[in-house]
Amino acid sequence: ITSKLPTVGTTIFTVMTRMAAEYGAISLSQGAPDFPCSNELIDLITHYMKAGFNQYAPMEGLMALREQIALKTERCYGYAPDPLSEVTVVTGATEGLFAAITAVIHPGDEVIVLEPCYDSYIPAIELCGGKAIRISLESETYRIPWQQLANAINSRTRLLIINTPHNPTGTILRKEDIQQLAALLKDTQILLISDEVYEHIIFDGEPHYSVLREPELRERSFVMSSFGKTYHATGWKMGYCIAPAFLTRELRRVHQFLVFSTHTPTQYALADYLKKPETYEDLPAFFQKKRDMFRQMMSQTRFRLLPSEGSYFQLASYAHMTDEGDADYATRLTKEYGVATIPVSAFYKEGTDNKILRFCFAKKDETLEKAVERLAKV
Amino acid sequence: ITSKLPTVGTTIFTVMTRMAAEYGAISLSQGAPDFPCSNELIDLITHYMKAGFNQYAPMEGLMALREQIALKTERCYGYAPDPLSEVTVVTGATEGLFAAITAVIHPGDEVIVLEPCYDSYIPAIELCGGKAIRISLESETYRIPWQQLANAINSRTRLLIINTPHNPTGTILRKEDIQQLAALLKDTQILLISDEVYEHIIFDGEPHYSVLREPELRERSFVMSSFGKTYHATGWKMGYCIAPAFLTRELRRVHQFLVFSTHTPTQYALADYLKKPETYEDLPAFFQKKRDMFRQMMSQTRFRLLPSEGSYFQLASYAHMTDEGDADYATRLTKEYGVATIPVSAFYKEGTDNKILRFCFAKKDETLEKAVERLAKV
Ligand SMILES: CSCCC(=O)C(=O)O
Ligand SMILES: CSCCC(=O)C(=O)O
Repeated sequence: ITSKLPTVGTTIFTVMTRMAAEYGAISLSQGAPDFPCSNELIDLITHYMKAGFNQYAPMEGLMALREQIALKTERCYGYAPDPLSEVTVVTGATEGLFAAITAVIHPGDEVIVLEPCYDSYIPAIELCGGKAIRISLESETYRIPWQQLANAINSRTRLLIINTPHNPTGTILRKEDIQQLAALLKDTQILLISDEVYEHIIFDGEPHYSVLREPELRERSFVMSSFGKTYHATGWKMGYCIAPAFLTRELRRVHQFLVFSTHTPTQYALADYLKKPETYEDLPAFFQKKRDMFRQMMSQTRFRLLPSEGSYFQLASYAHMTDEGDADYATRLTKEYGVATIPVSAFYKEGTDNKILRFCFAKKDETLEKAVERLAKV
Repeated sequence: ITSKLPTVGTTIFTVMTRMAAEYGAISLSQGAPDFPCSNELIDLITHYMKAGFNQYAPMEGLMALREQIALKTERCYGYAPDPLSEVTVVTGATEGLFAAITAVIHPGDEVIVLEPCYDSYIPAIELCGGKAIRISLESETYRIPWQQLANAINSRTRLLIINTPHNPTGTILRKEDIQQLAALLKDTQILLISDEVYEHIIFDGEPHYSVLREPELRERSFVMSSFGKTYHATGWKMGYCIAPAFLTRELRRVHQFLVFSTHTPTQYALADYLKKPETYEDLPAFFQKKRDMFRQMMSQTRFRLLPSEGSYFQLASYAHMTDEGDADYATRLTKEYGVATIPVSAFYKEGTDNKILRFCFAKKDETLEKAVERLAKV
């Protein structure tokens, strides 16, 4: 059998989570909290299950939920998408990304991705016969190299994928970046996917500058968000995609055959829960405390911390400590020191290894404390 | 924008469910029960949510659930798949089908489908650049036309998709059919997808003859099953795929980027619930009562019933009553008589219209009674 993804193994997230379990290590690897999600939300889901809302939802998502998503979007970014034609509920942002890419990429199309990037982008592009044009973000600052990006654009360029706040680096795109991007794409036919799953996890009072704020970009974009990330329940696989009607139509054409619909009782529950803006507006302060605490503690270790402006990730370099490759080093940290992380090379198709690890700080304070205690021994 | 699925509209299931709601019609359209699922199962899910099992499951599914699936499979079909390498939990059979097709179909590959068939098969094939070779099941008996099937096979044939019990026709494949298929595929490299989501909904004491019973086929097959269909909770989007290790490896390579994983607390709950074989072994009797009741009542109407050997569907011809096309007729039945059904032409890519409607009888007795009362007026 000829594999469609011959170079792909099991995702690094499953590999490291499994290794952490096997060696009893503290897992700061996969991007998932170890603290509970809202009890109120669980009670709402239970309520709707007991009330009998357990059959297929409409394939595009429950109207009540899409309306609340539209209201939230207006409140956050001053733009109200039409719930009927511009909002789609997806089975987590991963499914939304796969469906959007599959909906628009024809064989031979080029898609520009900025590495390091989430590991599903490139396989999704390649499964469509598309070609991923990989551009490296600037070393350690992880800013967009604008000139290189401009040079990469040609008549085959169909799509660009951006991600802010950025996984794995924790950088954010600011208003100037988004405007520069708008200027670059103006007068082209290039579509955009903006992966904004960490939209509510952003620090130091910075606003999240969604591409939805910028008409030039909004009109060509699929914007992905994630209830799993926002409501601490990554295992519920629930997210949404906002896109103009002409793109939403194509997205849904694929989505309906890819999964048909998403978890019905959770959609009803979220439609209620979203009515309380504090459920997402309190998030920056909540996670900033964790980031600050983690950074403060980590400053006692030998690791060299990079900035973290958003997301629940913190990068740290160990280049000054050992020559070991990051995959080997992450394995050794897990087995010998009992802390699992993600080697950043996993976010590059060709495994570029800058000797940097990604730590997830969406963890209970005591988890972070124990982990850093172990890391201090390195 | 050039659509990847230019001829595809919203799935008929969403169209008819929406129309039913709009006109206050009784919906015997989409394949979903209107009676409650197990309270015990809901309580288990709630328990696991409250206990904090709300983060990503392993991408291939929880090991405890895969073990129970293997035990159930052995109990039902005398074959125990290896949970580690041959069982994958998927986001409903629809996702499993899409992932399996995407995993093995390269541009130019031919895939044989037997029409009428579930409406996701052909778009999934076409999105991979594959070519769907459509063969019509025999008129009204819906048996496989073996000679035509044999003639359709050539060196480009990569995959055949079968479905038993069959949606929309309610026919089943018997031991002889499965053995004939084994003989046909022997000495070829052709892979098989066997869509067996209605495996536990089969009547008149017939056993479900899964392809898993037949080594010649099992070794080349993705077999799909659905907890949504078995446990009356289609909106939970939970199913599984059994396939030999070399196919499971390719399936998971795609699945992990398509959705990553499935609903975590539901997986824990199902791992417990599956320990009670009566939860699926009681199903044939439960649904046979509904089928018999529905058929008995329908025999008082002008519709001509076809056989229903399995699944929760009943076909009925109205060809002797009017010349109207089935889509128009289904629309009129919904609006004027208050009963929504599915026109069987929707299961043919080119809309072959034999003036047959599909009725779903997975409904409360009173729903079926009220619906037939209305249909008696036709
Ligand atoms: C879908 S598993 C990965 C979760 C995540 O976003 C990450 O760890 O980067
Ligand atoms: C995924 S919607 C369709 C459900 C079903 O199996 C059917 O109605 O045929």
